[in-house]
Amino acid sequence: FPSQGSKLWGGRFVGDTDPIMEKFNASIAYDQRMWDADIRGSKAYVKALERAKLVSTDEMEQILHGMAQWSRGVFVIKPGDEDIHTANERRLKELIGAPAGKLHTGRSRNDQVVTDMRLWLRSAISTLTDNALQLITTMVERAAAEIEVLFPGYTHMQRAQPIRWSHWILSHAVALSRDVERLQELKKRVNVLPLGSGAIAGTPFDIDRELLQRELGFDSISLNSMDATGQRDFVAEFLFWASLCLTHLSKMAEDLILYSTKEFSFITLSDAYSTGSSLMPQKKNADSLELIRSKAGRAFGRVIETVFQTRRGISVFLQSFFTVQIILQRFRINQTVMEAALSPDMLATDLAYYLVRKGVPFREAHGLSGKAVFTAESKNIALNQLTVEDLTAISPLFGSDVSSVWDYRSSVEQYSAPGGTAKSSVAAQVEHLRNWLKKHAQ
Amino acid sequence: FPSQGSKLWGGRFVGDTDPIMEKFNASIAYDQRMWDADIRGSKAYVKALERAKLVSTDEMEQILHGMAQWSRGVFVIKPGDEDIHTANERRLKELIGAPAGKLHTGRSRNDQVVTDMRLWLRSAISTLTDNALQLITTMVERAAAEIEVLFPGYTHMQRAQPIRWSHWILSHAVALSRDVERLQELKKRVNVLPLGSGAIAGTPFDIDRELLQRELGFDSISLNSMDATGQRDFVAEFLFWASLCLTHLSKMAEDLILYSTKEFSFITLSDAYSTGSSLMPQKKNADSLELIRSKAGRAFGRVIETVFQTRRGISVFLQSFFTVQIILQRFRINQTVMEAALSPDMLATDLAYYLVRKGVPFREAHGLSGKAVFTAESKNIALNQLTVEDLTAISPLFGSDVSSVWDYRSSVEQYSAPGGTAKSSVAAQVEHLRNWLKKHAQ
Amino acid sequence: FPSQGSKLWGGRFVGDTDPIMEKFNASIAYDQRMWDADIRGSKAYVKALERAKLVSTDEMEQILHGMAQWSRGVFVIKPGDEDIHTANERRLKELIGAPAGKLHTGRSRNDQVVTDMRLWLRSAISTLTDNALQLITTMVERAAAEIEVLFPGYTHMQRAQPIRWSHWILSHAVALSRDVERLQELKKRVNVLPLGSGAIAGTPFDIDRELLQRELGFDSISLNSMDATGQRDFVAEFLFWASLCLTHLSKMAEDLILYSTKEFSFITLSDAYSTGSSLMPQKKNADSLELIRSKAGRAFGRVIETVFQTRRGISVFLQSFFTVQIILQRFRINQTVMEAALSPDMLATDLAYYLVRKGVPFREAHGLSGKAVFTAESKNIALNQLTVEDLTAISPLFGSDVSSVWDYRSSVEQYSAPGGTAKSSVAAQVEHLRNWLKKHAQ
Amino acid sequence: FPSQGSKLWGGRFVGDTDPIMEKFNASIAYDQRMWDADIRGSKAYVKALERAKLVSTDEMEQILHGMAQWSRGVFVIKPGDEDIHTANERRLKELIGAPAGKLHTGRSRNDQVVTDMRLWLRSAISTLTDNALQLITTMVERAAAEIEVLFPGYTHMQRAQPIRWSHWILSHAVALSRDVERLQELKKRVNVLPLGSGAIAGTPFDIDRELLQRELGFDSISLNSMDATGQRDFVAEFLFWASLCLTHLSKMAEDLILYSTKEFSFITLSDAYSTGSSLMPQKKNADSLELIRSKAGRAFGRVIETVFQTRRGISVFLQSFFTVQIILQRFRINQTVMEAALSPDMLATDLAYYLVRKGVPFREAHGLSGKAVFTAESKNIALNQLTVEDLTAISPLFGSDVSSVWDYRSSVEQYSAPGGTAKSSVAAQVEHLRNWLKKHAQ
Repeated sequence: FPSQGSKLWGGRFVGDTDPIMEKFNASIAYDQRMWDADIRGSKAYVKALERAKLVSTDEMEQILHGMAQWSRGVFVIKPGDEDIHTANERRLKELIGAPAGKLHTGRSRNDQVVTDMRLWLRSAISTLTDNALQLITTMVERAAAEIEVLFPGYTHMQRAQPIRWSHWILSHAVALSRDVERLQELKKRVNVLPLGSGAIAGTPFDIDRELLQRELGFDSISLNSMDATGQRDFVAEFLFWASLCLTHLSKMAEDLILYSTKEFSFITLSDAYSTGSSLMPQKKNADSLELIRSKAGRAFGRVIETVFQTRRGISVFLQSFFTVQIILQRFRINQTVMEAALSPDMLATDLAYYLVRKGVPFREAHGLSGKAVFTAESKNIALNQLTVEDLTAISPLFGSDVSSVWDYRSSVEQYSAPGGTAKSSVAAQVEHLRNWLKKHAQ
Repeated sequence: FPSQGSKLWGGRFVGDTDPIMEKFNASIAYDQRMWDADIRGSKAYVKALERAKLVSTDEMEQILHGMAQWSRGVFVIKPGDEDIHTANERRLKELIGAPAGKLHTGRSRNDQVVTDMRLWLRSAISTLTDNALQLITTMVERAAAEIEVLFPGYTHMQRAQPIRWSHWILSHAVALSRDVERLQELKKRVNVLPLGSGAIAGTPFDIDRELLQRELGFDSISLNSMDATGQRDFVAEFLFWASLCLTHLSKMAEDLILYSTKEFSFITLSDAYSTGSSLMPQKKNADSLELIRSKAGRAFGRVIETVFQTRRGISVFLQSFFTVQIILQRFRINQTVMEAALSPDMLATDLAYYLVRKGVPFREAHGLSGKAVFTAESKNIALNQLTVEDLTAISPLFGSDVSSVWDYRSSVEQYSAPGGTAKSSVAAQVEHLRNWLKKHAQ
Repeated sequence: FPSQGSKLWGGRFVGDTDPIMEKFNASIAYDQRMWDADIRGSKAYVKALERAKLVSTDEMEQILHGMAQWSRGVFVIKPGDEDIHTANERRLKELIGAPAGKLHTGRSRNDQVVTDMRLWLRSAISTLTDNALQLITTMVERAAAEIEVLFPGYTHMQRAQPIRWSHWILSHAVALSRDVERLQELKKRVNVLPLGSGAIAGTPFDIDRELLQRELGFDSISLNSMDATGQRDFVAEFLFWASLCLTHLSKMAEDLILYSTKEFSFITLSDAYSTGSSLMPQKKNADSLELIRSKAGRAFGRVIETVFQTRRGISVFLQSFFTVQIILQRFRINQTVMEAALSPDMLATDLAYYLVRKGVPFREAHGLSGKAVFTAESKNIALNQLTVEDLTAISPLFGSDVSSVWDYRSSVEQYSAPGGTAKSSVAAQVEHLRNWLKKHAQ
Repeated sequence: FPSQGSKLWGGRFVGDTDPIMEKFNASIAYDQRMWDADIRGSKAYVKALERAKLVSTDEMEQILHGMAQWSRGVFVIKPGDEDIHTANERRLKELIGAPAGKLHTGRSRNDQVVTDMRLWLRSAISTLTDNALQLITTMVERAAAEIEVLFPGYTHMQRAQPIRWSHWILSHAVALSRDVERLQELKKRVNVLPLGSGAIAGTPFDIDRELLQRELGFDSISLNSMDATGQRDFVAEFLFWASLCLTHLSKMAEDLILYSTKEFSFITLSDAYSTGSSLMPQKKNADSLELIRSKAGRAFGRVIETVFQTRRGISVFLQSFFTVQIILQRFRINQTVMEAALSPDMLATDLAYYLVRKGVPFREAHGLSGKAVFTAESKNIALNQLTVEDLTAISPLFGSDVSSVWDYRSSVEQYSAPGGTAKSSVAAQVEHLRNWLKKHAQ
């Protein structure tokens, strides 16, 4: 791969683009691994045909041998092949002759294709699970390492309350952990044997479907042959899953893009995950994050697309996981900037709670703290620069001990209930997720 | 409700419209039951506040008493109420005065609203499960009762193979049974307590979240407060579920509409579930089925809509279930027409299998049977009217025993492997689903 | 291309698959013609650079010569080329050396890419317009040729009123003619020059944008540089157009699929546009129509996809037009079946009008005709088999002249107002569309 | 309307919420104005009936009188009314008795409903056009007034080049002006008379469709009766238009939300268009902008919804226009902050152009300027703090005149080609749009 220096915008960049990024930004070569699934299904099916005496043992051996042969070779699609399934049958005939014609006895493309899809998707789900677990591990360990860093929590893009930086990381890790659980659940519905359903009516021969189930490692056998060949629920369910999971990656990417703007400056992306402008020499764009941010909508649009596009979609997906993981491992945080972004007005809730602790009903305390905010704004000073006199004018319950409110770190430490942003609580979340990861890595 | 006679198109109708249909076709009154969920959440929260000594026992009693009072009355939204949550607080203040202001100590609208949504959706899921199980029961029992009826199975809207009518019914019942299983799984992710997450940082007070969990019957407690208040995965997941389930009802409705056309005439809908035309006196339209057929797309479009529309959506959904159930209970099937629609060309697969059983590889047998079809079409006769000579000209393996092929009932009986359309196999499916229903009805 | 005989389902087919169908059913090779648009844009830009004295006349000649050279050759994308635009610049540098570096003076990829897209889409719109006009011509001429054929008009898939077969064809032709008009309108908004907008701020050099407009044949010049580089409205507008037009083709395909079922048997598709089943020798599926029927939803899903997929999408689109046109030219209609499908109950509206003409208010006449329908159904006879006594019992205004109602052809001839299904009215529609086609073919 | 002080979050707010905002944030009362359209259509139709001698002049007078009566009253939907059209006929019968039953002679609900929809949508389009023109006027005049203000133009959320603030405003105004033009074009396709198309076949009576066209002010008459009653293109086209236009408002809202964050601080929204937090007293959220930002996706989801929801959708739409207009009129810009956000690295393009003007090919100049950016970053100084020696080390062509590059205002003034951000060019855009507005206001 070329160094960034030779790119149209390479002047200001020092490191090379990470090859993963090249691959991610470029278009993806087409995946023909559906082929493997088809061969695997056919091998099992010929065994069932032999058991049912529809092929002789000798014919079975020839067919198995033929399939072993070509699965070692390079497969070439010829014009006239309607799809991968007919291509396989055509090639088998070239290799072993007449017995090839018996392979499809009692089987239709309907149950054959859906068997292939289920085998293929089952394998894709395993790979996705592994990648998701690695990404969550990266996030949890970064949260553990940077637990001391505070920064502003935002709602509606406005500064809301001081929180731990790790609290933000974990909020995204928790969402991804739910995705892993969803994926495990839908896997059960993917891993169901349809073979033996024929076109719609079932199979009229003595095909042992339990043999097929064992050979192909399916969890269960389809209950009704029309449903088995006609339904694509498991694809729709998987695509929704993909869409939801991409939404989670997308939200995280959106925050990181904002945090990497000049105006926020909370994080600095490494050159290897950015690209430049062909016109403006100073530009460093978070392109890889932008790609991930924009994927969610597209995945959704694909819910109605065919499974062929799904395949390719999964390659893109795996790279999204991988890219997010690498980016999360490599960006630097600017702790000083982050903590400098905490401003006294973010403690207005604490000021209200100060009064609550002195017995003022919350709704009233909220109003009094709001008045303090207004007074500070009118005087053009920070909220913590109000004198005790200023505050006493708002409520006589304010005393000199109000100064204790203006400490971000002790503010954060109040949130020690389960799920909160106090150090103990965040550490407990880290611990919980480490255990969850151990359980799911088995 | 008025009788059909007074409708613009009432002349040819004898029965009244079923009141359920009136309700289903009309627009749906708005559902304000989110109110109940809000009160329930507030009652639990005030108990936690008392435990944390943020309200006195007396104040807690006043608040509980106040909420009990207004939950008995009729609730009136006033202008200035921002939403149901602020309306509740406003009303409480009118009833009990100052202590009302303490109810929101340490709680934000963020965790309050999402708690309400989860309580409400949990209850909706229970109702939907009950309705789906009733519908499946109706379908399974109709399949059991009409197991002797054969009719054409279609693929690509062309006659494919003779199947049992019950096989068609069960193919739809099986899809719905998977929907029930999915609903059970997502319920776990709905039934998680967010209360105690504040705006984003958690709660700074000594709120006992496990007490809240017990009081409100949640399965678990949210792990991270930012995730708890910011995520709406559970809504997206539910809406996808709704969309998939409606797709299943929609497909069934689509088939029934086709089967009720003059050209097919397989079923006759009762007047009570049809509407007429204001212009054409003879028309009887399957409006209720058409509404259900068209809902799938709409539900999908709603995935990005707000939860308020969801509520209303669920009423519509419940009625879809109910309407389909009633329609399924009441339409008549026209067995004579159904069986008359079976045509000899649908046994071409059996003709190929006849040769397979005599040792011809399937792919070759398929070609020979195809030639027979072509010969019959050329002679403009039915496939079973070909003489043994005609057939022998195609393959010498055809003998006089070929006549055994031309029996629809024995054709169907071949498909006795699990999931097939033979009587024993369909009966096994009925039995399986009856057991499944028993298990899920508990 | 292979003959159908060698296909898994070839037995019953006699003709070869039409090569167009092969191409349509197979996947489409990727279109790299964006390359041409990029070269065209660069040629114009270098002329503007020379005019602005940013390249010398000699350098301009070198650049033009270099581009002419490689546009004759075969273009090879190398790893490291970020996109087609950088690939072009890389290749130019290989061909002519240093002056290549001046080609992008004051131009950014932002205005370059959007210029290419607009040039490319403008050309696609021309091709689409031509194809749409050919399709409409085919439809109008078939309508003219078969104007004598009657068949049932359906609403809600139920027989409604007798209409001319040509009336059905023209209802679809009219929708497509609106699509052509929409395409002409959006073309104006596509054909706007963005070049000279830089990244966002405009161009700081003395680039003559009017020169660029003339060289590239644009209708107008973009008004604001940020809008020019940031907006993709014209793509969204085009994709919506494509989606709507595909909806029209899809609806027509849906009707034709229904009309080609065994149960309807109104039309017979030729073998060349059908495919078979790998299992069932007798099957003949309207695959090409099914593909077109299903495209509408997919196009819609693509509204949010990138323009690269659009390109490919347009190839698919062109083939849809072409396939529909060929299918429309070649299918046979079964006039006897069509006219036999007309049934007396479809004249119930005419029965009501008989009474209207004798002074009965329509709403009342509709009810009386409905009663006649009900009486005939109760007696299990056709509506036109009711005796004058039967009818007189319903209304004394019925007389022996009621027999004139039971003529399908005279029923149809009543609808002679503009847009109606009478022969004169359908002929007028044919004439109107022939004139419209002449006007748009210029 | 209540003051903000009584809201849960009212403490820090001084002004009342603008009543328009209240209305916008609250839910919208249902619009029953389809009623008017139905009456209007019926009045015209009865005149055509009289002309065709299907009602007497006296009956026509009674019907017109009856309709006039109830259009003055308050209309009450009764249970049993299937829709607004049957409600109208029911009410007419109550008012004038028997002749009411003649109103629907030869008319079906199919052509009646679509006539009502077209009348109603035509009127909605007029209102939307007026509102859009007002909004564009507001934008153009604000752009004219604040033409001197510079601020950073962003791409990929990173600072790109200095531009005029007015250039940003106009980029959005230009997009909206295209929306107005699109709306004018689709209006022609909305404003077509379908009345006289019956259910599908046309009208069998002597109904004068040109009379109907004149009475109802339609531009043309539908060409084919099946198309006229079956097609809803004009609704799909309008909904796409709405979706695209909302996307434009949404993008503008997104930028304004970003510019109003503490970190950007370019604009200050007035209290009247913001809401607070029930928990955090200091929060001021740009709720109204967030609502507009989120509408685009929702509108899109509605493309497949029914026209009833469209009606309500248009109220929401009108309020979006109005809200954006008010917000644009009232927010303050913080010119000092805006201009302070311009940083020397944004002039890196100008630094490259400096070299281009000394004869360096742009691609090389871009690389040299990139090196300067890198050198400055390495030394941790601003780009304009590099000494002439530093720069000469990068290219000997840099001289002391390089200091002229570091002036934002002269940088901006370079972009004087049409569409650029120079003062003359922005002023020309203002002038162009003022003329465009004059033309469209007629």
